[in-house]
Amino acid sequence: MRDKVAVIGVGCTQFGDLFEKSYEELICDAAFEAYADAKIDPKDIQAAYLGTYLPGPGGGKSATSLGDALRLYDRPISRVENYCATGTDAFRNACLAVASGTYDIVLVVGAEKLKDRPGRGLPRFGHPLLAKGNSAPGLFALAANRYMHTFKIGRDVLAKVAVKNHYNGARNPRAHLRMEITEEKVLRAPIIAWPFGLFDCCPTTDGAAAAIVCRADWAKRFRDDFVLVKGVGLAVTAGRPYFDPTFDYLGFRSTQQAARQAYEMAGIAPRDVDFAEVHDCFTWTELSNMEDLGFCAKGEAGYWVKEGRTWLSGDLPINPSGGLKSFGHPIGASGVRMIYECVMQLQGRCGERQVKNAEIGLAHNVGGPGAVSCVVILGLPS
Amino acid sequence: MRDKVAVIGVGCTQFGDLFEKSYEELICDAAFEAYADAKIDPKDIQAAYLGTYLPGPGGGKSATSLGDALRLYDRPISRVENYCATGTDAFRNACLAVASGTYDIVLVVGAEKLKDRPGRGLPRFGHPLLAKGNSAPGLFALAANRYMHTFKIGRDVLAKVAVKNHYNGARNPRAHLRMEITEEKVLRAPIIAWPFGLFDCCPTTDGAAAAIVCRADWAKRFRDDFVLVKGVGLAVTAGRPYFDPTFDYLGFRSTQQAARQAYEMAGIAPRDVDFAEVHDCFTWTELSNMEDLGFCAKGEAGYWVKEGRTWLSGDLPINPSGGLKSFGHPIGASGVRMIYECVMQLQGRCGERQVKNAEIGLAHNVGGPGAVSCVVILGLPS
Repeated sequence: MRDKVAVIGVGCTQFGDLFEKSYEELICDAAFEAYADAKIDPKDIQAAYLGTYLPGPGGGKSATSLGDALRLYDRPISRVENYCATGTDAFRNACLAVASGTYDIVLVVGAEKLKDRPGRGLPRFGHPLLAKGNSAPGLFALAANRYMHTFKIGRDVLAKVAVKNHYNGARNPRAHLRMEITEEKVLRAPIIAWPFGLFDCCPTTDGAAAAIVCRADWAKRFRDDFVLVKGVGLAVTAGRPYFDPTFDYLGFRSTQQAARQAYEMAGIAPRDVDFAEVHDCFTWTELSNMEDLGFCAKGEAGYWVKEGRTWLSGDLPINPSGGLKSFGHPIGASGVRMIYECVMQLQGRCGERQVKNAEIGLAHNVGGPGAVSCVVILGLPS
Repeated sequence: MRDKVAVIGVGCTQFGDLFEKSYEELICDAAFEAYADAKIDPKDIQAAYLGTYLPGPGGGKSATSLGDALRLYDRPISRVENYCATGTDAFRNACLAVASGTYDIVLVVGAEKLKDRPGRGLPRFGHPLLAKGNSAPGLFALAANRYMHTFKIGRDVLAKVAVKNHYNGARNPRAHLRMEITEEKVLRAPIIAWPFGLFDCCPTTDGAAAAIVCRADWAKRFRDDFVLVKGVGLAVTAGRPYFDPTFDYLGFRSTQQAARQAYEMAGIAPRDVDFAEVHDCFTWTELSNMEDLGFCAKGEAGYWVKEGRTWLSGDLPINPSGGLKSFGHPIGASGVRMIYECVMQLQGRCGERQVKNAEIGLAHNVGGPGAVSCVVILGLPS
C-alpha cells in the first residue's frame, strides 16, 4: 500500500469541555475544515469512516450520525471501533479502501463526547477479576511501577514528560489544557494511582478530527504539498496483557508488532522518523512507547527525556502537539487528531510548535489497555 | 474490486438460545469450521474483521475477543459496527483490505449474544421523539401499514412470507426456529405491532458465522469451487428515515443505493441474480427488499409471493436458508451468515434446501432501521 494513498486535507476542532457543542456539530467542524483544507466539494467524497469508541448516552452514535451531520447520503459509511486505537484504525481502514481501488476519495472522522456521560463514565472491562474499580490509571500504573523499579527511574522523569507536553500544548491553539506546568507542580499533585499524580494523566476531553485521503496519483489535483501514507500497522495481542504470563510489564508487544508492520510497509527504520505523536495517556506510557516503537532501547527512554532529546528542539521531538496529556484524549478522535498533527507538521503549518525540517512523521495509538496498537507513518513525497 | 477477492471457506454455528455457549466459544465454533472448510492453517490468516453490534453486558466484546478466542495474536483485527448491517459491512471491509493488496488472506467473523442481556434488551434510539418505547417492530410496522394500504395487500400475503421462510428453515439444521408453520397460525398469533403478529417477526438469537476471503489469484490453492466476490455496496441515508419528509414509507433508499453500487461493480442486472438472502427482520421487509433490490417493481412483490415465485422451486428463491425469520438474527452474525448461505448454495452443499443451478447469489442487510443497507453479490467463476 506504500505511497498509494495521500492525505489531501485535515481538520480538527478545539479540544476541551465542549458542553455547548453536540457530537454532530463537532463532526461538522472537523469535516468542514478538512473540506476547506483540501479545497474539495463534499459531493466528491465517495465513502467515509467514522472512528468512535463509545456509543452516545442514548445510543446510536454510529454511521448515520456522520451521514446526518454532513448530509453525506447514499454513500458507504462504516464505523470502526478499536478501543483507544479507534481513530488510527479508522484512518487505516480508509486507506485500505482507497488502496483497493474501490473509492478514489474517502473521508475519515474521529469523534467523541466524553463529558456528556454523567454518572456513567467509561465502561468497566468485562473480566470478573477487573470488574471492581480497575481503571486505565490503575492498569497502566502497574506497568509503570515495574518499569520504574527495573530501570531505576523516579517520578521526576515522568514529570519531565508532562512538563514537555504541556509546554508544546501551550503553543497549540486547539489543545484542551493550554498551560505550561513545572516539574514541582506535577510532583506535588494529588496521586491518582501511584506513581501517577493528576498531571501524569491525560484529561477527559470532547473533540473531533478529520482527514481526507485519496489515491496518490490524484493528490496533485488538490494541492502540491500533499502527504503520503507510507505505512500502517495494527496488532492485537492478549486481550488482558496483565494476565498474560509472558507479559514483562515493561512495554506492549502490540505496539512493537504494529510498528514492525508499519516500518516494513514504509521501507524505513525507526531512526528515519523525524517526529512522532505517541499515545501518552499517562506520562509513563510515552516512555514505553518510545522504546516499543524502536526509537531507543528498552530502559533508555528516561535518559532521552532527561537529556531533553524529545523536546521540540531535540533530535526526536515527541508529541509536538502536546500529546494526549495536553491536547486531550477524546478517544475515537485522538488517532485522527494525530494524523492532523503529523500532516500539519510535515506541511510546516504548526507555528510556535513547528518541528524543523520534518520529512517523516509517525502516529501511534495504544488501547485495550495495552492489547491493541495502531501505527501510521506519513511522509512527504520524495 | 470485482473478481479480485474470493471466499475460500465459511462456517456457521447453530443459531438459537445458546445460554450454554460463551461469545468466545461461538467465535471459535464458526471460525474453526471456516478454517477446516478452507483447509487452512490458522497461522496463515493475516488480518481479521469482527462484526458485532452490541458490546457485551460487561463491555469489551471487541477486537480482543476475537484475538483471544482464536489466539490470533500480533495481527490486525478491526471491529466494524453498522447497525443491523454490521455483518455484511464487516465482510465488505475485509474484501477491501484484500483488494488493497495489503493482506492476502483475511478472516471475517460476525458474532452476537442477544440472549445474555437480561433486563436490558436492545438500546433505545437516541432521538427524543423515539425515546418512549419505539422499537424495531413499531418502526417497520409504520411502513408496512402504509405499503399495505397503498398496494392493497392484506396480512395473508405477509403470512405467506413467514410460511415460506419457516418451510426453508425447517430444512436447515443450523436454524433457530426449525419448524414449519401454517398461514392460519401466523394470522392468529398475538399482535406485536399491527400488522405484525408474533410470526411476522424474526426471533432474538445467539450465533456466529465466519468467512475466509483471499486474493482471487490464490483461491485455487485452497479449493476448486471457490466463490468470487462480484460486487459490494453500502449506503447510508437519513438516520431517521421516518422523519425524512421525502420518505414514502414504501421501501428504503439505502437498499436501492447499496444495490445500485453492487450491481454496477458486478456488471450485472437484478435479473441475473439466481437467489437472494435478504433482511427479513419482519415479513413485510422481505417484500420491500425484493422491490428495493430491483427484483420486481414497487408493489409487485406481493404478487410474486402469492404466485409462489420466491419458494425454493420458484424462479427467484428468496431466503432459502429460512432467513432472519427462521434462521434467526444475531445482529452482527446475520450478514456473515448470509455470506455462508450464499457460498454453500453456490457450491451445492445445502441438501434439502438447495437452490438448483445457482450461479449468482445476493446477500442483503438493512439496519438503522432503514437508514443503512449493505449488499454483497457472490458468484461462481465464469
